[in-house]
Amino acid sequence: MKVGILGATGYTGQELLRLLNNHPEAEIVYLGSSSSAGKDIAAVYPHLSGCGYVLEDECIPDLDVLFVALPHGIAAARVEPLLKRGIKVIDLGADFRLRDSLEYEKWYKVKHANPGIISEAVYGLPELYRDQIYGKSLVANPGCYPTASLLALVPLLEEGLLQKQTIVIDAKSGVSGAGRGVNQALHFSEVNENFKAYGVAEHRHTPEIEQQLTFAAKNKVHVSFVPHLVPMTRGILATIYAQVAEGLGTEGQKEKILRECLKEAYQQEQFVHLLPEGVWPQTKYCYGSNHAFLQLKYDERTGRVIIVSAIDNLVKGASGQAVQNMNIIMGLPEGMGLAARGMWP
Amino acid sequence: MKVGILGATGYTGQELLRLLNNHPEAEIVYLGSSSSAGKDIAAVYPHLSGCGYVLEDECIPDLDVLFVALPHGIAAARVEPLLKRGIKVIDLGADFRLRDSLEYEKWYKVKHANPGIISEAVYGLPELYRDQIYGKSLVANPGCYPTASLLALVPLLEEGLLQKQTIVIDAKSGVSGAGRGVNQALHFSEVNENFKAYGVAEHRHTPEIEQQLTFAAKNKVHVSFVPHLVPMTRGILATIYAQVAEGLGTEGQKEKILRECLKEAYQQEQFVHLLPEGVWPQTKYCYGSNHAFLQLKYDERTGRVIIVSAIDNLVKGASGQAVQNMNIIMGLPEGMGLAARGMWP
Amino acid sequence: MKVGILGATGYTGQELLRLLNNHPEAEIVYLGSSSSAGKDIAAVYPHLSGCGYVLEDECIPDLDVLFVALPHGIAAARVEPLLKRGIKVIDLGADFRLRDSLEYEKWYKVKHANPGIISEAVYGLPELYRDQIYGKSLVANPGCYPTASLLALVPLLEEGLLQKQTIVIDAKSGVSGAGRGVNQALHFSEVNENFKAYGVAEHRHTPEIEQQLTFAAKNKVHVSFVPHLVPMTRGILATIYAQVAEGLGTEGQKEKILRECLKEAYQQEQFVHLLPEGVWPQTKYCYGSNHAFLQLKYDERTGRVIIVSAIDNLVKGASGQAVQNMNIIMGLPEGMGLAARGMWP
Amino acid sequence: MKVGILGATGYTGQELLRLLNNHPEAEIVYLGSSSSAGKDIAAVYPHLSGCGYVLEDECIPDLDVLFVALPHGIAAARVEPLLKRGIKVIDLGADFRLRDSLEYEKWYKVKHANPGIISEAVYGLPELYRDQIYGKSLVANPGCYPTASLLALVPLLEEGLLQKQTIVIDAKSGVSGAGRGVNQALHFSEVNENFKAYGVAEHRHTPEIEQQLTFAAKNKVHVSFVPHLVPMTRGILATIYAQVAEGLGTEGQKEKILRECLKEAYQQEQFVHLLPEGVWPQTKYCYGSNHAFLQLKYDERTGRVIIVSAIDNLVKGASGQAVQNMNIIMGLPEGMGLAARGMWP
Repeated sequence: MKVGILGATGYTGQELLRLLNNHPEAEIVYLGSSSSAGKDIAAVYPHLSGCGYVLEDECIPDLDVLFVALPHGIAAARVEPLLKRGIKVIDLGADFRLRDSLEYEKWYKVKHANPGIISEAVYGLPELYRDQIYGKSLVANPGCYPTASLLALVPLLEEGLLQKQTIVIDAKSGVSGAGRGVNQALHFSEVNENFKAYGVAEHRHTPEIEQQLTFAAKNKVHVSFVPHLVPMTRGILATIYAQVAEGLGTEGQKEKILRECLKEAYQQEQFVHLLPEGVWPQTKYCYGSNHAFLQLKYDERTGRVIIVSAIDNLVKGASGQAVQNMNIIMGLPEGMGLAARGMWP
Repeated sequence: MKVGILGATGYTGQELLRLLNNHPEAEIVYLGSSSSAGKDIAAVYPHLSGCGYVLEDECIPDLDVLFVALPHGIAAARVEPLLKRGIKVIDLGADFRLRDSLEYEKWYKVKHANPGIISEAVYGLPELYRDQIYGKSLVANPGCYPTASLLALVPLLEEGLLQKQTIVIDAKSGVSGAGRGVNQALHFSEVNENFKAYGVAEHRHTPEIEQQLTFAAKNKVHVSFVPHLVPMTRGILATIYAQVAEGLGTEGQKEKILRECLKEAYQQEQFVHLLPEGVWPQTKYCYGSNHAFLQLKYDERTGRVIIVSAIDNLVKGASGQAVQNMNIIMGLPEGMGLAARGMWP
Repeated sequence: MKVGILGATGYTGQELLRLLNNHPEAEIVYLGSSSSAGKDIAAVYPHLSGCGYVLEDECIPDLDVLFVALPHGIAAARVEPLLKRGIKVIDLGADFRLRDSLEYEKWYKVKHANPGIISEAVYGLPELYRDQIYGKSLVANPGCYPTASLLALVPLLEEGLLQKQTIVIDAKSGVSGAGRGVNQALHFSEVNENFKAYGVAEHRHTPEIEQQLTFAAKNKVHVSFVPHLVPMTRGILATIYAQVAEGLGTEGQKEKILRECLKEAYQQEQFVHLLPEGVWPQTKYCYGSNHAFLQLKYDERTGRVIIVSAIDNLVKGASGQAVQNMNIIMGLPEGMGLAARGMWP
Repeated sequence: MKVGILGATGYTGQELLRLLNNHPEAEIVYLGSSSSAGKDIAAVYPHLSGCGYVLEDECIPDLDVLFVALPHGIAAARVEPLLKRGIKVIDLGADFRLRDSLEYEKWYKVKHANPGIISEAVYGLPELYRDQIYGKSLVANPGCYPTASLLALVPLLEEGLLQKQTIVIDAKSGVSGAGRGVNQALHFSEVNENFKAYGVAEHRHTPEIEQQLTFAAKNKVHVSFVPHLVPMTRGILATIYAQVAEGLGTEGQKEKILRECLKEAYQQEQFVHLLPEGVWPQTKYCYGSNHAFLQLKYDERTGRVIIVSAIDNLVKGASGQAVQNMNIIMGLPEGMGLAARGMWP
C-alpha cells in the first residue's frame, strides 16, 4: 500500500511519518512540503535520518492514500484531481469537516474553494461514525478538540440523557496543537510557567463540535467552548458540564445510567476507555498513543454531570486517528500500527 | 509592629516571610514550626540565610499579629488564648472560613475544635468585605480558589446579573497550591507534561465559594466546581460560565452591563484589574504579586457570560492577601509592602 | 519466547513492558513486584488496562529471559538459582556492572551478596562489547550515565586519541532517572523551573565509567563526573571535555581524525549516530527511542575536544538497551522491537 | 534621581522597570523603544498598567542615568553625545565589555562604532571591581554567563590556586537569556522537555570571560566554555572544573584553602554567598533576586576542584547588577532596591 504525506514537516505530518514507519502495510513513497522541498527530512528533523527525502508539494505520484497535513484552505483546492486519479485522501485540516460551506466561511474567514465536494467527505471519527467511513475516498479527519469533546458527548446526547442547551466544554491543550510556526505567544519564555484561555467563545472548533452534537441530538445544539493553553507539549483534556435530562431515573440511578451509556458505547472499542469509577483521566495516559480516556460523575448538588475526556492531540486528535481512518477505508484491521499505549512517565 | 508566623517552613509560611521582609512596618520576631524547630531557616531554605531561626510552635511571644499557616484543624484549637493575649490572628487555613461548623465538619471530615469562636472571625477578602475587616482580631484568610472565583462572581451576583443556579467554575492551579508535602501524585515525573482534574465536584473550597455567593445572591447558590492541576508551580486561573439574568438589557447591551458592573466594583482597587476588552488574563501576569486580573465576554450564541480570573495562588490566594488583611486590621495603608507587579517572564 | 519482569511497576519495569508489548517474539508471562503483588497493572498505571497482573516477586515461573528492574543489592542475592533453572537474566541494576566487588561495596555502601558470580556477567553495551555478549546468560545492563559517556569516549580512548587523565564529563538528566520513589527533592514544585548539580564527584556511576574507560585505555583512568537534574522527565545529555593526545596530526587534521574515529565506530550501527557536522544532539531526538546521538568539535584555542552525547535515559539508558541485549543473547535480530525513532515534539 | 530605560520592552528592559519601580530613589522618567514607541507599556505587558508610556528611542530627555538594554552595536554608536550631556550610561549589551575592539569585531562580527570610547568604560561586576566603578560615567554591565563564571573563578586565579589552562566552564541557562525575539529554536514545543548544548566553543561570552580571567591570572587564560539551554525560563548554573595549582598544601588541606579563598572574597558581600559545605546551589535560590550562590569541592581522585555558581540571568546576570552599578556610581547604598531574596517555590 503506497502512501504519501503532504505537509510532511509540520507536527502532524512528521507524526504521521512516525506512525506509518511502524505500520506493517504502509509504504511511504512520498513526502511533500513546499518549504522543505529538496531536502532530506533529516535536515529538518535530524533524528529522522534515513526516513526519506522531501519533494515539491505539486509532484504527487500515484498513491493508494494521501494524507494532507496542511493549513486549511489548501486541501479544498487540490483534492478533486487527486480523487479522480483514484487516490484516497485523508485531510487533517478543516476543509471538509463542516457540511455547510457558509458556516466554514464564517468561522475560517476564507472562501471555500470547492463547496461541491464537501458532500463526498465523511467525518472520520471511527468510534462514532465507523459505518459511514467504510469505502469512502475522502475523509475529513476531526479536529483535536472535537475528538475529545464528541467522544464524551455524542452517546449521551443520542440517548437523550443531557439537556442539550446546557453544555459547557472547558478544554485544555498542550502547545503542539498550535503547530510548528513561530509566534510571540508560543515563545518558550511566554508560555512556560503560564496558563491562559484563548479564542474564548470564538474558536473554530466550535461549529464542528456543534454540528456533530446537533446530529446526535437531532436538534440544534449550542455549546460554550473555551480552549486553554497548558505549559506542556502534548495532550488535550476536556472537562464537560451539562444538566442531565429531566426525569432521568431516581437521584441514585442517574450516574449509573450515564455511566452505562458510555460503557456500552465503548466497551468493544480498542482505543476509547471509560476508566473505573473514581479514576480520572490524565493527558499523560495517552502520551504518544491513539487511546482516549473518559470518566464521569453525576453531582447531585447541581444536577450536572461532569465528564472528563483525554487524548493526545497529535495522535487520536490528528495523525493517529488519520491512520485509523486509513485502515478502515483500506479494509485493514482498524488498529494496525496503532497498538502503542501511552508512554509513561 | 511585631509579627510572627506559625508554620513558617511551609510554602505559604515562607512566602509570608518573603513578603514581610519587604514590609516597612513589620518586624518578624517569631518563626514557629514543629518540624524545624531549633534550626536556622537556612537549613530548610538555603537562600534565606540571615532571615531567622525557627522556634517551637508552642513558644509564641507577645506579638501584634500572628499569621497561622498550618493545616486545617490546628488554628481552631489554638486561637482563643492568643486572642485573649491581645494577639491579632490571621489564619491562612480553613478553620474560620465557613460560618457553619457542621458544613466544615462535613467537608473537612474533622470535628471543629471551637465552633463558638467562628463568629468572631471575618472572611478576609478585602475588595469585597473591606468594611467588615477593619478592627477585627481574627481573620479567616480566603482559600486560593475562592479568591479567584469570588472576585469574578460576587459583584455580578450582588447586582442580580446572573442566573445563580447556572454557575460553572472550571479552575486550574499550579502545583504549589498542594503544599510542600511529598506525595506520589506530586512527584515531578508524574506531574510534568501532564494535566488532570482532581477533587471533581468534591473539593473543600466548594462550600466556601457557595457560602459567599449565597450571601451575595441572598439565596442559596450551588456551583459546579472542578479544580485541575497544571504542570507549573504558581498561578490559578478560573474560567467561569453562567447564564446571564433574563431581561438584562438588549442583546447588544448585555456585555456592556456586565463589564460596567465589574469595572465599578474594582476601578478604585489597586490589586484587582479588569483588563481592556479582548485582553485575557494569564497567570504569569500575577507571578509573585498580589494582583488579580479579570476579563469577561458575553456569548450571544449561548446566552452565557464567560469570566476569566487569574491570581498567584501563594500571594493573592494566600500570603499576600494575608498581609493585605494585616495592613487593614492594623490601620496601615492597605497596599503596604505589596507593590510588586508580576514578574515576567 | 517467554519473558518476565521483576520490578514491573518501577519506571524501568513499566518501560520494559511498553517495549516488550511491541516485540514480535517476546511473550510477557510474568510481572513481579513486592509492592503491587495481586493487583492488575492497571491499578498502578490506569492506561495499561489489559496488560497483565502483578504477582509476588518470589513466584518466578519458567522463563527464557527475566529482566530484573529492582534496586541494587537484590539481584545479586537472587540470580544464582535462576541461572541454574536455565533462565537468562538481564539485570538493570548495578550488582554485576563492577568487576571488583570491593569497588562495588565502597561506592554502594552495601556488602555484595554473591561476589563469585560477577565474573559470569557481561557488561551489556552492545555497540562496544557485542562479541562478548553473545551466548551469555547474565547481562549487567549499563547505567544511564555510563551508556551516554562510554559511547562517546571508548572508541577515542581505544585509539589513543585523548589524554586520558584530562576527561571531564558534565552530565544532565531528566528526573525519571531518579525513579518513582517520592522524595522532597523530586517534588514537582522543588524541581520545576530549577536546575542543580547533585552527587558532585561522588555519584555511583563514576566507578562504572572509569572501569570501562580503563579497559579501553589499558591504563587506569580517572574522570571528573558531575550529574545535574534538568526540569524535564526523560533524557540524558553528557558534555565531555578532554585534551587530545599530543602529536595528533596537524592542527587542521585533529578534528577530522577524531570524527573519523567515531564515524568508523558507529557507521554500521542502527542505534548510535554521529550527527552531520555542526548539528548538535538534543535529548528530544531520542525521546522514547533506543537511539543515541553524538557530535564533537575540536577547539584549537584550548586543545580540547568537546563531545556531546544524548540518549533517552529510560530506553538506551535502561530498558531499551535491555531489550537489545535480550535480542543478542537469544539470537534475534538486534533491533527487533526497537525500531521507533524519537517522538517529536 | 531621574532614570530612563532604552529598550524598555525587551526582557532586560522590563526587568529594569520592575526593579526600579521598587527603588526608593529612582524615578523612571523615560521608557524608550523603537518597536513600541507611542504605546502604553501595558499594550505590551498588560500586567504593567500605569507603569508608563513608551517613547521613541531617539527622544532621550535629561536624565541622571540611562540604562541601555538594546542589542549590541547600538550603544557604541549612541553613547558619546549622552555622556557629553552629563547622562551616566549603564549598557547591558556587549559594546564596552571587551577592552580590545578587534576582539569584539572578531566575536561579534560587526565593526565597533566607537572604539575610542571603550577605555572610558568600566567592567561593572561590583564584587570584583567595585573600586574601579565608583565615579564612572559609563558602565559595561557584564554578560550573564561571565557574571556566574567570574564570581567563581577570579578570586581563585588571583591567588594562584588553579592551573590556569585547565579551566572548563559548563554553563546552563534558562531560555529568557535568549531574549524575547521569536525563533524556531525557542518555540515552546521545541524547547520544552528537551535539553541541548549550543554555541559550543564559540559563544560570544567566551572572550569576555577570558579577558577578566587573564587580568586575574596576569597571564593569558583560555577556557573551554559550553552553554546549554535548560527547559526553564530563568536561571544560570555554571559548573566549573580546574586542576588545582601544584603544591597547594597537603591533600587534606587543598579544599580548605580553596574554600577560604572564596569565603574571604565574599564574606562581606550582601549578594554573593558561599553556601555551607555540602549544600549545592540551585538556580531557584536566586529566582527574581540579585543574589548569587557558590559551592566547591576538591576531588582528590582527579586533582580537580569543581565549583558551582548560580544566578538569575535577568537579575544578577543583567538588570539587577545594572541597578547595583547605578547605586554605586550615584553614591547610594549598593543594595538599595535589591533586597529581595529568591522567590520559592
